Amino acid sequence: MYEKQLLLIPGPTMVPPRVLRAMSAPSMGHRSKEFSAIIKDVADNLKKVFQTEQDVYILTSSGSGAMEAAVVNFINRDDKVLVLVNGKFGDRFVKINQRVGAEVIRVDYEAGTSANPEDVKNMLAKNPDIKAVFVQHNETSTAVVNNVKAIKQAMGDHEALLIVDSISGMAVADLPVDEIGADVVVAGSQKAFMLPPGLAFITVSEKAWKVNENCTSFNFYFDLRAAKKNYAQDTTPFTPATNLILGLKEALDIILEQGLESKFKQQLKFKKIIREAVKAMGLDVLVKDEQSASPGVTAVMVPENIAWKDINNIMLNEFNVLLAGGQDELKGKIFRIGHMGYVQETDLLTVIADLEMALYKLGYKLELGQGVKAAQEVILNLKGEM
Amino acid sequence: MYEKQLLLIPGPTMVPPRVLRAMSAPSMGHRSKEFSAIIKDVADNLKKVFQTEQDVYILTSSGSGAMEAAVVNFINRDDKVLVLVNGKFGDRFVKINQRVGAEVIRVDYEAGTSANPEDVKNMLAKNPDIKAVFVQHNETSTAVVNNVKAIKQAMGDHEALLIVDSISGMAVADLPVDEIGADVVVAGSQKAFMLPPGLAFITVSEKAWKVNENCTSFNFYFDLRAAKKNYAQDTTPFTPATNLILGLKEALDIILEQGLESKFKQQLKFKKIIREAVKAMGLDVLVKDEQSASPGVTAVMVPENIAWKDINNIMLNEFNVLLAGGQDELKGKIFRIGHMGYVQETDLLTVIADLEMALYKLGYKLELGQGVKAAQEVILNLKGEM
Repeated sequence: MYEKQLLLIPGPTMVPPRVLRAMSAPSMGHRSKEFSAIIKDVADNLKKVFQTEQDVYILTSSGSGAMEAAVVNFINRDDKVLVLVNGKFGDRFVKINQRVGAEVIRVDYEAGTSANPEDVKNMLAKNPDIKAVFVQHNETSTAVVNNVKAIKQAMGDHEALLIVDSISGMAVADLPVDEIGADVVVAGSQKAFMLPPGLAFITVSEKAWKVNENCTSFNFYFDLRAAKKNYAQDTTPFTPATNLILGLKEALDIILEQGLESKFKQQLKFKKIIREAVKAMGLDVLVKDEQSASPGVTAVMVPENIAWKDINNIMLNEFNVLLAGGQDELKGKIFRIGHMGYVQETDLLTVIADLEMALYKLGYKLELGQGVKAAQEVILNLKGEM
Repeated sequence: MYEKQLLLIPGPTMVPPRVLRAMSAPSMGHRSKEFSAIIKDVADNLKKVFQTEQDVYILTSSGSGAMEAAVVNFINRDDKVLVLVNGKFGDRFVKINQRVGAEVIRVDYEAGTSANPEDVKNMLAKNPDIKAVFVQHNETSTAVVNNVKAIKQAMGDHEALLIVDSISGMAVADLPVDEIGADVVVAGSQKAFMLPPGLAFITVSEKAWKVNENCTSFNFYFDLRAAKKNYAQDTTPFTPATNLILGLKEALDIILEQGLESKFKQQLKFKKIIREAVKAMGLDVLVKDEQSASPGVTAVMVPENIAWKDINNIMLNEFNVLLAGGQDELKGKIFRIGHMGYVQETDLLTVIADLEMALYKLGYKLELGQGVKAAQEVILNLKGEM
């Protein structure tokens, strides 16, 4: 490996050397006082990033494990749930709920559009026995960000839990968990947290803990009661991925040094850089509505008569840039540029310049430099502050 | 952290710098060709270590996650299972089976004694409808190694599955999975694999796959059907802990460079060094029977009138050595010296010398150097080859 690849997929994202160094410390006893102090430090900082006073538990798993935890600890067989589906990961919430034996009402949105809070209101009115509403904060597969706050508001006084997958949204777009009143929120290490994959995070409101008391479907490894009990002693029920947690400590320090507000603003700028640049190249974006476009990943339509496979081939093998294709029914139709985590503006100029050259080589009609120019104009605020 | 601690707990174990360096590589796309090549390499080498022709799936979880996978993919509600319990982890198999709703027959062994294959024979004769026999290869909590081969032989022609937790046994004591005919075997990264925690491994026999076809209790994240399907394309169903897998590649290379036979012999020598040394110090071991004593961890009885807390305090704070105490009902009664993974004979001389000094300071009657001498005699083969 030459190891100079520009990794711009929507996770795993690039990891700062500071984090990699922290991860390469010698092994530690996971029940040692020294490690408990690290757990405590990390737990405190996770609360800051989640903007919550509740505990944020650390799971050693991919984000999908945390999604399962967000279902099995609260939903019983035959419970009715509403799942808003903006893409592959919304569909995953459906599948996990089906495994539990829940009765799933799903509302599907056209690829590239965000969830409509009105639908939640109507569905809850029609089905007052809905026990939980599931939604992605940021749907990675379609590069859509949902307005979680508006969804919660649309729920009004209904007692259903709001369960949010913010795996690729947390620390990318503002999600003040307590202020909004989201009940269960999950995040993952390999997105904006700038860590390798292997850790996931989950927080649970008091209301959700009450629901958990009557939950019988939970499994063993993802039993959050055990997580809660152990967290009170600054430890975890099972041996956690200690070295990833050492990296997490460093990554959280980096995030909080920058500050959440600055980070969210930066992410919006990244989004604008990419969107303006690809539009200047004559490309379409999947998400037309600015408010619905993710600040962490942008989905670009593959131009007519050009194959994503060929674009990817040039980007990867000639320019050493890894982008992501579309998934499932979007395969070949879109490609995705990740811009979350350890990314700076220069990286985005590079990817735009490379993309121009790749498309140029494939016979796509464009004037070289126009995309870069549009990106530069955003960086320099030539068209007004964000 | 001064980072010179001698970490001799039975996991997490010490990690070779070669592995730590491999883990600190920049992030990679988990669906990239480059990473698939690594998965393939690792999958091939895992088969060698497991001594099996079957796939060995990689799970991103602690060992307990793999234990859950070993239950939920094969056992349905109301299935009858036999669990041999030599300590805390046998008890964990009971608990996971109970979560699934299985009817659990447990056979408990006195702490420090291994499972009796005759019991398996008798239990299967009395309960011909037993669907699976669960056993620890190496029970970490009591430092006992079970004779898995004899247990399988005792099962005779009975069609029950043999499901083995070898989390702390694999690459420590010989477990030729195919030759023995074990159906499901799990292992963990943070023991003899010389990796930080965060990965677990599981292999499934053809017979067990047939049982899986009729299994309805499996959950989402640990669904091995998805693992199997994805492995055929050198990938995993969910984003795996990529950097730990980079470390795994290196660790497997180290293990196979040494060779399994050499490794098992070395582990037996480690066991003999520790056992002879502590006996020469007048200490008792928990596991009296040599054949039942784990080659990877030794449980030593805390001497009368001395508190483990005080021993631990001196070992940790004065000599920078971390040992493990007893768990649950063995708390305060035993302490455990781990000797698996990245350990060499010198480490064991050090821990014995430190232990002598710690006990000396606490008023325990011993002649300094006697334990070390016994260890040296084993190292030099003065009392005959192993």
